[in-house]
This record gives sequence, structure tokens and C-alpha cells, in this order.
Amino acid sequence: MPSEFALIDRYFRRPVSHTVLGGGDDGAIVRPSSGCELVVSTDMLVAGTHFLPDADPADLGWKTLAVNVSDMAAMGAEPRWALLAVALPAATESWIEKFAHGFFACADAFGIDVIGGDTTKSPPVDAALQRPPPRGQGNTWGGPACFPGPRVFCVTIFGEVPTGTALLRSGAAVGDEIWVSGHPGRAALGLAHLQGQTVLSAPALTDCLAALHRPQPRVALGLALRGLATAAIDVSDGLLADLGHILEASEIAATLQPAALPAPTFDRNCYLAGGDDYELIFTAPAARHAEIDALTATLALPLTCLGRIETGTGLTVLDPAGQPIDIARRGYDHFS
Amino acid sequence: MPSEFALIDRYFRRPVSHTVLGGGDDGAIVRPSSGCELVVSTDMLVAGTHFLPDADPADLGWKTLAVNVSDMAAMGAEPRWALLAVALPAATESWIEKFAHGFFACADAFGIDVIGGDTTKSPPVDAALQRPPPRGQGNTWGGPACFPGPRVFCVTIFGEVPTGTALLRSGAAVGDEIWVSGHPGRAALGLAHLQGQTVLSAPALTDCLAALHRPQPRVALGLALRGLATAAIDVSDGLLADLGHILEASEIAATLQPAALPAPTFDRNCYLAGGDDYELIFTAPAARHAEIDALTATLALPLTCLGRIETGTGLTVLDPAGQPIDIARRGYDHFS
Repeated sequence: MPSEFALIDRYFRRPVSHTVLGGGDDGAIVRPSSGCELVVSTDMLVAGTHFLPDADPADLGWKTLAVNVSDMAAMGAEPRWALLAVALPAATESWIEKFAHGFFACADAFGIDVIGGDTTKSPPVDAALQRPPPRGQGNTWGGPACFPGPRVFCVTIFGEVPTGTALLRSGAAVGDEIWVSGHPGRAALGLAHLQGQTVLSAPALTDCLAALHRPQPRVALGLALRGLATAAIDVSDGLLADLGHILEASEIAATLQPAALPAPTFDRNCYLAGGDDYELIFTAPAARHAEIDALTATLALPLTCLGRIETGTGLTVLDPAGQPIDIARRGYDHFS
Repeated sequence: MPSEFALIDRYFRRPVSHTVLGGGDDGAIVRPSSGCELVVSTDMLVAGTHFLPDADPADLGWKTLAVNVSDMAAMGAEPRWALLAVALPAATESWIEKFAHGFFACADAFGIDVIGGDTTKSPPVDAALQRPPPRGQGNTWGGPACFPGPRVFCVTIFGEVPTGTALLRSGAAVGDEIWVSGHPGRAALGLAHLQGQTVLSAPALTDCLAALHRPQPRVALGLALRGLATAAIDVSDGLLADLGHILEASEIAATLQPAALPAPTFDRNCYLAGGDDYELIFTAPAARHAEIDALTATLALPLTCLGRIETGTGLTVLDPAGQPIDIARRGYDHFS
């Protein structure tokens, strides 16, 4: 089995293009652009919580970075650098090679220098507990029957914005319209199909699995929204839950009446509460509606006006007939 | 059980002092100091690999940040900002409160703004495998008898150095002396005592457990070594292994003859190969020996000259009598 250092060298160390010092020292060195602020974010992905243990490693590599790139998009930042920390139960070289392939495909697609990271062992979980398994269970302590530790990935990403131009959650104001990019709910529908909870037609399945496995962070949209949007967030927890974060941060209310709301209850729930889409929800003054409409063509990306920001607190959702929808199931909370 | 967002708010969100925008948005915003480069590093700690599952949570919180601060010290950087991502098997509030207390104690000690992170669930490992346990074993799939997922922590730290002044591994040159701070091996001795492999006297045990549980990153030393040291690294894998990284990066050889080398073989192995000490190893021109000696008093930190950089490749270690020591066991490699 190759050593930790050999694996890092072979699969995770690539040339950098805009970095003073890449991986290999105790830290990497970057020189932020003059007149810019640095936007930073970190996301951890754990097997069984964020991805299925048998997920395709190349897709998983792409997604591990893409969900972080999406945070830069939501802030209107240009993604520039990333660090990758991984815990793996074993140094399975073919798996790591595919994962690295997907990860760097995403890095290359968005012009990101991967400047370092950490590689560590995820120990067998009964060994990690440092105690024998419960009585009557055949596991040998640390032996071959024990459960391997989960794969864990943690990416930290750094982007740049000209000073003072980042898109925040807190800027939504009365009179703003609420927009969403793309087709929310596809990732949740794809997952539901894989888990046998729904059956998608072949063309829908292709779209939905692409949304689930190879999310496309909306970086170009985020950059175009600087100076145009008043608030933005990416859809990771679900459309309503993430819009709720904007409303809380902006201390304001909203009414949605999505024209494109799917009729079947299951599809509607995925649209409103499905996470993992990495589309952007944003608000902008109604007076700039036409400019945003025009971006749909420029970016080749559907942008849909969903409703309006209003005074007060809370979120109301109306169906196409104007009837309120019960929105108790708003999103996903890891510990509830 | 409190929700993910409530837990983050309660324990991991503290006021920031030198940050444009702290946690709560898709990213944090920092404004690097003019004339400075940014030094960044990430480290992941996994239960069973990096710490015992029953480790004191406050000590673990301190150490999780301290090992990252140590990377800044090794680069001669001033630590400024940190992000913390955690995966936990359950939202045990009392545990999280103690962990956060230790973590922020370290942040406060080194003037670090904690500017965001991620909180996620570490699922039961048999559930994470998405398959029933092996036949004949009493586990219920996902039921109460399954193994809880491990605790995982990933910190990313950001420091600043005036442009061009970072300490790298690659600058060691012939004629340099090799120095180490503090007392390497103490953390390994402490761990060996806890694991019943050795028995320490009461005063030694106190020192060694402090080194193991509450390592003191040598930030003041790192800052003092700017413009003085030619190369530096922190002792995380073991003195010889980490010195080996300097020799590889600098393409050069060394001979060590530590005057303080412990006589008992076990203690000697801990001194030479024990990891987790977070002391600094550094090289500096012999002509500056007196300046470094003087730092011992200024910083109230022992600095010991261990040997010399030489032409060629490889590392030779001599005992106090001048006899070569077999140094096959050099350090720790996670996958070998």
C-alpha cells in the first residue's frame, strides 16, 4: 500500500497557476489581489449523511468541490483557491485516482488552484471506540469483521470580490422580487428515484441524476449579480429553508407564488424543500426585472421570478390558484 | 435535541475583532493586511486516529485548533482567522459546550477570529454502509446496537506574513545549524503512559500529559525566526521524520548529535520519533548561533542545537559517545 505522502504527491498535487507556494510546506501561500476582499467557506461531506457509500468516486470528487464553489457563487465571489482534507478507511488507489479526477475536473472548470490539504486514516469504528463490541456480537475488536470508518471530505475554498461588493443574505428589502436559477428539486427527485420513492421517465432521470451527481455551481450568475442583487444564497438545504435564511438575516417577510410549481405533491415537495441543488436564490429591486430577465439569455440559464419581499416576518407560499400551501416541511436539519 | 443552527449559534459563534463578516452567510469575508501574504493550512482530526474517543472535550477543543496554529508558527506567520468543520454522532450539548470552551481558549490565546465553519452529522457506521450487518451479528440495521460514527474535526487556519518572509522547508543550506525548541518526545511519553507502555513519575507525567493534551504552538518563536532561520517545520510526525522533510525539500543532508538524548531506548525513541509535540525544528546559519541562544531567555523557551546541515543526502544520528544510532523507526505514516 503506498504511503500517505506518496498518495498525496501522486493524486492531489498539481501545478498551480496563481499561487505563491502550493502544497508541500506547513502552509500554502497566496497573495490576494489588491482592492479585493477574501471570501472563505468550508464544507464537510460525510459518507451516509451527504453521499451514498457506493457513490461513483469521480462524481463524488466533482461534487465535493462543487458544493464549495457554490458558496462562492452565492457571495458573488470569484473562486480562486481550495484546500482538501480527506479521511479514508484505506488507501484504495483506484478509488482515490477517480476521486481526484473528478475533483480536479471541477477545479479546472472554475480556474481554482488546489493549494494543499491533509490525508488521514478513518479507522475501523469499533477500533475507534477503543472498546470491545457489545456482547453476543461476533465482531473481533479491530479485526476483519469490524466496520470500516466512513470516508470524510472537508474542502475550504477562497474567493475574491472587489471590496464591498459581496452578496450577503442580509440585504433583501421591501419591493424586491425573489428569483431562483435553474430547476430546483431535480437533485431531490434523482435521489428519490435511486431510493425507490418515485419513478422518473428516462429523460427526467438523466437531468435529475446530473443535478444530483454533477451540480453546476452558478459562478457566472453570482458575478453578474454584483451590484444588481440585494441578497443571495445557494439552495443546499431546500428552496424554502434557504430563502428563510435570507428573510431571517434581512428581518423581512415574503410571499411566493411560483408559476412553475409542479402539481404532484411529491414533485412539489422536492421543488420547495429538496436540498442539494446548488441553484441560487436571490432578491433584486423590481425596477431591475428586465436586466435579470436578460441574463437568462446571456448565461443560458433560466431565471424565474418566484414572488416578492414584503414587510413583516414569515413566508407565505401560494399555489398557482392563489391558495396557501402548508409548508411545514421546509428543509433539512442535520440534528433534528 | 437542539437543531444544527441553534447549536452553531450557541457555541461556535463569537464576536470577531478583525474580520469584515463572520459566520452566518455562505462565506466569511476577511481583508488581508496590505503588504502581507496569506498563509493557509488545514488539518483533519479523526477519533481513533488522532485522539482517543474518551478524550476530555475541552483538551480536544484546544488541541484541534493548536495543531493548526502550530503550522502558522512553523511558517513564521501570525495566526489571524480560523474555520471549524465538525462531524458529530449526536448533538450532545454538554460535550459540545466543553469542546467549544477549549477551542475558543486557544483562539483567544493567539488572537484568532473564528469566522465560520460547518456542523454535520456523523451517521451510525452500519447505517452509513447502507447494508445490513454481517450475518450472525446481533446489530440491527441503523438500530440502537449499531456503532456510532466517529467525531471528526477539520480546521482551516489563515495567517499573515509580510510578503516574502515566510519560513519554508526548502531553505536549509550547508553550514546551517539545526535547532529544536522545547522537549521533544513528551507527548509520545504521555500517550505511552496512558496506554500502559511505560510508567512515568508524577512530575514527568504532569509535563508529558500537558504536552499531549494542551500543546503550546510556538508562534512567538516563529515570528522571532523571520529573517533568522533558513528553514522551519513543526514536529507533528516526529523529530527525525519532520527534519527529513526539511532535508528533502532543501536537497541536503544532516548529522545530529543531540547532547540531551535520553539514555533509555524507549525514551530515546520517543525523543527521535514521537509525534504530536508541536515544537519547531529549524535551521539557521552557524554565525547566528548567539542570537538564537539569546531567544531562549527572551521567549522563556529552551532552544537546543542538535547538529549541522551538510552536503549530500540522508540523515545520520550519533549518540553522545559519537556512535551512529539505527534510525529505522523515523515517524508515523497514516497508511503504512
